[in-house]
Amino acid sequence: MMKELPLSKIYQLLEPGPVVLLTTSRKAHANIMTMSWHMMVEFEPPLVACVVSRANHSFAALRATGECVIAIPAVKLAPKVVQVGNCSGRDVDKFATLGLTALPAEKVAPPLVAECFANLECQVADTRFVNRYNLFILEVLKGWRDPTQKNPKTIHHHGYGKFVVDGETIQLKSKMP
Amino acid sequence: MMKELPLSKIYQLLEPGPVVLLTTSRKAHANIMTMSWHMMVEFEPPLVACVVSRANHSFAALRATGECVIAIPAVKLAPKVVQVGNCSGRDVDKFATLGLTALPAEKVAPPLVAECFANLECQVADTRFVNRYNLFILEVLKGWRDPTQKNPKTIHHHGYGKFVVDGETIQLKSKMP
Repeated sequence: MMKELPLSKIYQLLEPGPVVLLTTSRKAHANIMTMSWHMMVEFEPPLVACVVSRANHSFAALRATGECVIAIPAVKLAPKVVQVGNCSGRDVDKFATLGLTALPAEKVAPPLVAECFANLECQVADTRFVNRYNLFILEVLKGWRDPTQKNPKTIHHHGYGKFVVDGETIQLKSKMP
Repeated sequence: MMKELPLSKIYQLLEPGPVVLLTTSRKAHANIMTMSWHMMVEFEPPLVACVVSRANHSFAALRATGECVIAIPAVKLAPKVVQVGNCSGRDVDKFATLGLTALPAEKVAPPLVAECFANLECQVADTRFVNRYNLFILEVLKGWRDPTQKNPKTIHHHGYGKFVVDGETIQLKSKMP
């Protein structure tokens, strides 16, 4: 179940640096990869920068179609996240193989991932750094959140399958948005 | 106390998305800001992308000098991190006011922050996205780590002073670097 999430709140999901999944779709074939190299670039409309290596099967689909979905998994999905990263869409249908559920997005062709607590429909907004750095600037067109997943704990990659899970939350008096 | 950190391991520090401090130096005046909008772009030599808003006093110094240090604080520094974000280098000497210790870097003019568990000396490598997105591409020239701070827990910003602290570590069988 996915409920719309205001675009003004998107940065609160990505700024903390969670491992995310990236879905693409090309010639009616959906694919999915893991990604940790992403950051916010602008609050609203939300712009996100990300690096997708040419070695990933998703690279060609993203460049050709200009569309993707960023799906954010909670820790319960960690084993599947690693499986997503350990195989290639060249060889397998990852959704079917890993038992992940593709839901139709509203504004883009790539699917949402039903098991993730948030999904962000994105369109490539700038490709000028793709050739040099494999760096895409994405605009988030629409955000979705699963309200049944309360206080999801995200995971943060430290290399070679070592992940740190979200711990306690602290609130300090900050003027920072 | 800072010990050299191999450049090949820098990504393991930034990929998980911690809040970091950014120091700059201009006309013998050091300044410091908080930053969450950063990501890895290349493993080695390590390239890092970051967004520094024009509203920050540090922006002009970074653009003019092309040098900065990324300092990574553990949770015990969280109150000072918020104070760094709540005042401007236009008005105060943040190091003196907040009781942070500037250590000389080796390859750049901006100082390391002694209280942080890691410090990365950086040089601006590409400014082509600065005008459009305030996005700098940095090359990490040298990394430092304080070996007396064992298993530091970093903090992750969710907006308006809400931070999530690193929790448990999990190890999964991953081929991902």
